[in-house]
Amino acid sequence: MEFSFQVLKTDPTGARLGRLTTPHGVIDTPAFMPVGTAGTVKGLTQEALADLGVQILLGNTYHLYLRPGHELIRNMGGLHRFMSWPGAILTDSGGYQVFSLSDLRKVTDEGVRFRSHLDGSEHFLTPEKSLEVQQALGSDIAMVLDECIEYPAERGRAAEAARRTADWARRCRDYAREREDASTTPGQALFGIVQGGAYADLRRESARRLVELDFPGYAIGGLAVGEPHEMTCELAAAAAAELPAARPRYLMGVGLPEQLSDYVACGVDMMDCVLPTRNARNGCLFTSAGRISIKNARYAADSRPLDENCSCMVCRNYSRAYLRHLYMANEVLAAILNTHHNVHFYLDTMRKIRQAIAFGELAGFSAELQARLEAGHP
Amino acid sequence: MEFSFQVLKTDPTGARLGRLTTPHGVIDTPAFMPVGTAGTVKGLTQEALADLGVQILLGNTYHLYLRPGHELIRNMGGLHRFMSWPGAILTDSGGYQVFSLSDLRKVTDEGVRFRSHLDGSEHFLTPEKSLEVQQALGSDIAMVLDECIEYPAERGRAAEAARRTADWARRCRDYAREREDASTTPGQALFGIVQGGAYADLRRESARRLVELDFPGYAIGGLAVGEPHEMTCELAAAAAAELPAARPRYLMGVGLPEQLSDYVACGVDMMDCVLPTRNARNGCLFTSAGRISIKNARYAADSRPLDENCSCMVCRNYSRAYLRHLYMANEVLAAILNTHHNVHFYLDTMRKIRQAIAFGELAGFSAELQARLEAGHP
Repeated sequence: MEFSFQVLKTDPTGARLGRLTTPHGVIDTPAFMPVGTAGTVKGLTQEALADLGVQILLGNTYHLYLRPGHELIRNMGGLHRFMSWPGAILTDSGGYQVFSLSDLRKVTDEGVRFRSHLDGSEHFLTPEKSLEVQQALGSDIAMVLDECIEYPAERGRAAEAARRTADWARRCRDYAREREDASTTPGQALFGIVQGGAYADLRRESARRLVELDFPGYAIGGLAVGEPHEMTCELAAAAAAELPAARPRYLMGVGLPEQLSDYVACGVDMMDCVLPTRNARNGCLFTSAGRISIKNARYAADSRPLDENCSCMVCRNYSRAYLRHLYMANEVLAAILNTHHNVHFYLDTMRKIRQAIAFGELAGFSAELQARLEAGHP
Repeated sequence: MEFSFQVLKTDPTGARLGRLTTPHGVIDTPAFMPVGTAGTVKGLTQEALADLGVQILLGNTYHLYLRPGHELIRNMGGLHRFMSWPGAILTDSGGYQVFSLSDLRKVTDEGVRFRSHLDGSEHFLTPEKSLEVQQALGSDIAMVLDECIEYPAERGRAAEAARRTADWARRCRDYAREREDASTTPGQALFGIVQGGAYADLRRESARRLVELDFPGYAIGGLAVGEPHEMTCELAAAAAAELPAARPRYLMGVGLPEQLSDYVACGVDMMDCVLPTRNARNGCLFTSAGRISIKNARYAADSRPLDENCSCMVCRNYSRAYLRHLYMANEVLAAILNTHHNVHFYLDTMRKIRQAIAFGELAGFSAELQARLEAGHP
């Protein structure tokens, strides 16, 4: 299948119902992508991902480059075959992890020099190298290398990072076009990334620069890094307004369940976040009545399901008391069941959001969700 | 369902094909019971256990007594409901873990005083207490408290432990009969345990003492603790010869896959072992061509399934290279997939053993298995 995107319906809020077609399947948008860091969504088999209705997941280029290495994965036929996942995969550029995980990084216009967090070995990540790795992985959607900055950051620094990101985006695009045949997935698409820190005008300018480069899709990066939620929405909306309506928009690294519909209302079509998976392993579970910390003693003899409104395998079969016991005993099954539920909760929230858009009622849905979750928070 | 046992066929080796009926389902014997230490077979959901064809699993009384506590489990309706496992459960007495895991144990005729390996708290385990806990758990089969000794042990010490075990067996039986109604599983059966160290005459004497107490089933304990495999078989066979043919026989804590048919040929109907699950988490995988240590660099780019003769979900879908990557990256999925395969391998071996008995060909099957595994060992 060729990469393509169709907007099926637009809601009064600006939210879009869409269909993204990739070499490994069709994705209903707005879509949430679980994070499969090192070729696995921690705690879930690929069979479980399929059962949960996952259509696309995110793989981390940084992690896979360091271990097991992109050439090994290329030789195994690409990431889909390596991990036996028939659905779609989006890979990030590796940049975010280089900036957040690695040691001794040094950024120049050429690229980023860093040391592996695993063994201290030195590596140099350039826009071209990032694409070389992502072509070996053969994701359905690759991302350009961008410079991620901290929040808050001075305007000058934000402008400089946005400028460098645009330069790198051009180099990534040119490399990807020239070496298209090197990808283990024919038809791999490349998304540009809008930067610009917390400055709406820089965001708009960054978006316009990227649009000139004509990507099949656009991401909005460097948000949800500590700024207030309202600011995230304003900046995302400012960027989205400059992006072509016919191309998919991906807001990177968001968010809490109750925030997802706000981002969708900014005109965003794709999101990813480690929260459902990471929080699951820490015993923080999302429910229709708010968050639950399953280690709390109040659940020790609680025979109710985690979420009485949830139809997932965990809520159908297991009690809060059992989930608490597994967590306290540090059992592998705690990670399995908690992750299963949280990922289901995110995907189910997105299903409800898509339905609300289809009925043109996203604003009402968001208000109701907000009210219910606020009432339920401990 | 009432507890009952039928021997359907006896093979020339002495192996028995049977059917064990319990309050939670029928079990085809010879049966292998995966170990579900703390109310979970580490790494597997209860859905996976059912998919694998597990009919009975083992729960550890010691672990569940300490955490989450047997009264909590009683209040949750028993262990089956607590862990949402509809199949059969056998619980051990807690004795083995007290002898192997806890601190400061002191054995008297009254019972065993010990300190919890979790928090150092002091507890006193008596035959009656063990039954009280197992009745709260509501296993389908409970075990009498026995005294486990080290190998090698002096004859005097082995005789003394066997004597004490028989006394405790009587106390357990009397307590269980008097308090039958206290079990969360009506119809819970109680098995006696043969001890006697490495002394065949003591084993026979121990078995005869227990048979006088008229248990619905008999276990052979304290074997596979370091003695040679041939000795294990001789001692098991010596005990089995004294046990009534119409009652099930359970050889505790065995064994390697290539040894299972030997134990079955001793007239054993049930077995349990942590090897498939514990080894899985250490990357040691059982295959039809012998054991594989998946961390070995030779598997880094090996696109073959773990075991080409295996039909399990893991071998159908994943490569050795991927399994090695997951293990090296310390991913939760490594434990999940490795455990799934190893448990499948044990259950499949037992299925083949049952088929061989049905055809009266267990001796040939064992010889062939032995030859194949020895050829395959690295």
